[in-house]
Amino acid sequence: MYRTHTCGELRLSHQGQQVTLAGWVQAIRKFGSITFVDLRDRYGITQLLFNEALNDKLDENPLGREFVLQATGTVSERSNKNPHLPTGEIEILVSDFTILNRSAVPPFTIQDDTDGGEDLRMKYRYLDLRRNVLKKNLELRYAVNRAAREYLHRHHFIEIETPFLIKSTPEGARDFVVPSRMHPGQFFALPQSPQTFKQLLMVSGYDRYYQIVKCFRDEDLRADRQPEFTQIDCEMSFVEQEDILNMFEGMIKHIFREVKGVEWDEPFPRMSWEEAMWHYGNDKPDIRFGMQLLNLKKPEGVFPEKQALSELINGAGFRVFDEAETVLAIAVPGCADYSRKQTDELAEWVKRPQIGIKGLAYIKYQSDGSCKSSMDKFYTEERLLQIAAACGARPGDLILLLAGPEEKTRKAISELRLEMAERLGLRKKDEFKALWIVDFPLFEYDEETNRWVARHHPFTSPRPSDVETMIKNSPVIENPSLYLQHPYARIKANAYDLVLNGNEIGGGSIRIHQRELQEKMFQALGIHAEEQQRKFGFLLGAFEYGAPPHGGIAFGFDRLCAILGGSESIRDFIAFPKNNAGRDVMLDAPSPLEEEQLRELHLKSEIQH
Amino acid sequence: MYRTHTCGELRLSHQGQQVTLAGWVQAIRKFGSITFVDLRDRYGITQLLFNEALNDKLDENPLGREFVLQATGTVSERSNKNPHLPTGEIEILVSDFTILNRSAVPPFTIQDDTDGGEDLRMKYRYLDLRRNVLKKNLELRYAVNRAAREYLHRHHFIEIETPFLIKSTPEGARDFVVPSRMHPGQFFALPQSPQTFKQLLMVSGYDRYYQIVKCFRDEDLRADRQPEFTQIDCEMSFVEQEDILNMFEGMIKHIFREVKGVEWDEPFPRMSWEEAMWHYGNDKPDIRFGMQLLNLKKPEGVFPEKQALSELINGAGFRVFDEAETVLAIAVPGCADYSRKQTDELAEWVKRPQIGIKGLAYIKYQSDGSCKSSMDKFYTEERLLQIAAACGARPGDLILLLAGPEEKTRKAISELRLEMAERLGLRKKDEFKALWIVDFPLFEYDEETNRWVARHHPFTSPRPSDVETMIKNSPVIENPSLYLQHPYARIKANAYDLVLNGNEIGGGSIRIHQRELQEKMFQALGIHAEEQQRKFGFLLGAFEYGAPPHGGIAFGFDRLCAILGGSESIRDFIAFPKNNAGRDVMLDAPSPLEEEQLRELHLKSEIQH
Repeated sequence: MYRTHTCGELRLSHQGQQVTLAGWVQAIRKFGSITFVDLRDRYGITQLLFNEALNDKLDENPLGREFVLQATGTVSERSNKNPHLPTGEIEILVSDFTILNRSAVPPFTIQDDTDGGEDLRMKYRYLDLRRNVLKKNLELRYAVNRAAREYLHRHHFIEIETPFLIKSTPEGARDFVVPSRMHPGQFFALPQSPQTFKQLLMVSGYDRYYQIVKCFRDEDLRADRQPEFTQIDCEMSFVEQEDILNMFEGMIKHIFREVKGVEWDEPFPRMSWEEAMWHYGNDKPDIRFGMQLLNLKKPEGVFPEKQALSELINGAGFRVFDEAETVLAIAVPGCADYSRKQTDELAEWVKRPQIGIKGLAYIKYQSDGSCKSSMDKFYTEERLLQIAAACGARPGDLILLLAGPEEKTRKAISELRLEMAERLGLRKKDEFKALWIVDFPLFEYDEETNRWVARHHPFTSPRPSDVETMIKNSPVIENPSLYLQHPYARIKANAYDLVLNGNEIGGGSIRIHQRELQEKMFQALGIHAEEQQRKFGFLLGAFEYGAPPHGGIAFGFDRLCAILGGSESIRDFIAFPKNNAGRDVMLDAPSPLEEEQLRELHLKSEIQH
Repeated sequence: MYRTHTCGELRLSHQGQQVTLAGWVQAIRKFGSITFVDLRDRYGITQLLFNEALNDKLDENPLGREFVLQATGTVSERSNKNPHLPTGEIEILVSDFTILNRSAVPPFTIQDDTDGGEDLRMKYRYLDLRRNVLKKNLELRYAVNRAAREYLHRHHFIEIETPFLIKSTPEGARDFVVPSRMHPGQFFALPQSPQTFKQLLMVSGYDRYYQIVKCFRDEDLRADRQPEFTQIDCEMSFVEQEDILNMFEGMIKHIFREVKGVEWDEPFPRMSWEEAMWHYGNDKPDIRFGMQLLNLKKPEGVFPEKQALSELINGAGFRVFDEAETVLAIAVPGCADYSRKQTDELAEWVKRPQIGIKGLAYIKYQSDGSCKSSMDKFYTEERLLQIAAACGARPGDLILLLAGPEEKTRKAISELRLEMAERLGLRKKDEFKALWIVDFPLFEYDEETNRWVARHHPFTSPRPSDVETMIKNSPVIENPSLYLQHPYARIKANAYDLVLNGNEIGGGSIRIHQRELQEKMFQALGIHAEEQQRKFGFLLGAFEYGAPPHGGIAFGFDRLCAILGGSESIRDFIAFPKNNAGRDVMLDAPSPLEEEQLRELHLKSEIQH
């Protein structure tokens, strides 16, 4: 061992002891014939004092930043104590030292506020990881990992590893594939999730399974997505939805308690998918703040049980609203005094291609109780005040209104709501609000193919009350324009998402466990019998030998860690992430293979290098 | 929840309670109007009693083996107790039941002694996993996993996940590769181990890293090898070999204590690679039994510091020995009374192509102290007795002698030693003997290319005392026939293996942490500067910024579990293994891709389906 202690553990109580430390030179300060060095390791920083006796040796062996140094000496009380450092009461009076390795000048400073840009830090990730902020992130990740395992073990879950070289069954996202050398022309796929395996384990009777496991999706990358990511993957038998929600609400609360010291007294609220879309325009609402949507207009077939307050806007001759499918509003607290420049800027913001709304109307509900609006020409002040009231606005608030096609407008106002909250500082990193979203639609309609697609995945069970609707009706959509009236459009899934601070951190469902229902589901999704057998024959087979009722959930581990760490970026919580183009710039991967490798795999690349 | 209790927890103390159980029908026994059902779940078996009141319902809903059943009733004392079952004092007097799912007749019986063959059990793995013996194996695996984590955490190791989509740098085994869709013509590789990443983490200062992680090798399959396997992967900074041996000897002892209740009082013995090869013919000796090798003859250049007892066989005119490079013997305890038929059978055994030795000589050191030998013509009884004595034989033992080329003969007698021990029952499943093998050669000579290859891997450091030999000498081998005299042939590695019951369960080394030495190593292995930079530029770069001295070890998790479980087959300790041809027969993977998938990957398969 090159050291007797770490750089984080020596205290005044060690005074007089002879110790040896090893670590990295964080800083060097010379005062006349005396040199101070801050020596850093994973555990902390300790001050070394080299007095004049070592000057010759220091001259022969000059130190530099990030040099690896081993130093022996005596623990001494500091004259000038540093109360910000756990080791700040002592220093090491060095009697001898060895330079274990030298360092070139790092391409950026190894400090919390580094001068390195993203690209440089990704290329030299091994130096970036020396920074305290990243170290804290990886330590937090490990703590979350441990807390999850501890909770699940206590509740009789058993970790079982599932294979990585599996069969390609592309549904939804694309598989990464692995060519087989031993079986020419054939490929394995990397798992998008261990979904079918954990279901098989339920059929095998393992009853409570978990795994913290890498998954792979070959998606076109969006910001902050990674082609490989980690899931806390869980499944239980003999349970209903309620049992799963309770079990995993418990897990999240346990993790917060262990890792953040946050106690969660109240149960997580539950909200139906429909309520979430109606009030937030979004199935992962951030409920750290209000600003719920006011539904002023909507198409008839959508949310058929909901009533929009169209009487507040109809009959005023405002063509923008009259011609729109949907009109939605939010009341932004305290912004009634926005200038023309500011409202113009917001109008530009919603016109950007990412949002794509033609314009923005507003009502300034002023502190004196009066209203000013971009729609003064069409609406009386009385009517404007009614809209403000329906919005839950208070004097001083700014009401923003968007109009357009249903889906786009709802999405747009949801984005606008988040943007305004961000600007107002309402999305606090150290405030945590979770809720369950339940009662998702089982199917979504795909216009292009005039077919149903699974909203969650093909193994999700309908709600028990909807099973009969699914079995009894044909999935065929005779009239595309009336798809909303097809019985399948109303079928709800036995599925649930856990949403934390506006992020979906987990999702799952009660699964289908009967072969007939699973076949009906595949059929509804346009997977014919031969294809069912070829791709999922093992699962359909397993359902014939006593499959128990079961369900589960998977948590996005990277995202959960990022939120716990108060960050928006999952990359900062992954030791060696890919960049936004899906590359590892440190390794320079992916990269071309050697000829011989391709030949052995019986493959030809259509790209020449 | 479909149950109030599991099938393993009810006792006499629950008598009178109303309970609901759910599980699988293990057995049905009808006695007149009464039906007994053994209900099974992960936790045990509980007896259900259906009396005549339920006969009509049972007639309408007949039960069968492996049906999933939910039953409600009262816990009652059994009249006929079963002391072999934890729940054997009670039964459930059923008041109502629901069949949750039916089962077809399984293709084999779900019992410890199943009637299913290997192929059938692999195809229906989800049924095979219901068998108690496999359940126990997976539970043991989970217990080993937990014990390892607990020990490592207690010793300040932190688990850090390393990436699965990395760069292909084929050295040694072949990589599995993953074509990139987004970067046409380029490929990721799956890691053969996280070797370079854990070294980078040491450069980053993480100091004590571990990971229980899947690794991938595209090798031609040998029996009981898996293309994907699990490692306990560890690395430490500021350590020497001694520190690592102590730390991980502690881990293995902890695992044995926690999982098997085995206390290991003595330190694991340490043996140099040379001693192991000399005394056991093998670098993973099984030391549960003796039968050490007697070295009667060897080539001069091999084991130059060892002395073979050639005076015992020379000058007798026995051409087989005179012409052989190497003559080795073992004394097999208590087998002096082997018949001619038995010694002939042994001679056939060593002649098989897997062993490939031309013949076998023997000396029967009989109980009366006299000798009989296949070499009576050449050696006096006195000489035979001397050989027997040198072998450590006692009256009643059978001495077996093999002669031939050094490498082949040493390997052959090592195999013969294991075979004889197996036949004599000396390889006991419940006896555990571990030892460290140290001082491996750093290089092996490759005849084909007249070059050095790394025995461990290119990142292994030479012993400190051999660094200078490596730096100062050119790796070029001028005269292939004299390669043993090249200074590199004597360089020992700072490497170590942990051997348990004749299996290498872990191996590692102190790593090179200086750029110059690493470059010299690559050069010695014939990797020229451009290739070094292209493949390992990130690691060479990292060594320039203050790399600490470091080293590590990796344990074969599957094998460790198998040995702890007293089995030779790792497949029985993996939930969903590949078969001997590297296929998943349950999934039928690998399999051909859809046209569209290949097209998106810019690939052409040279195989038509």
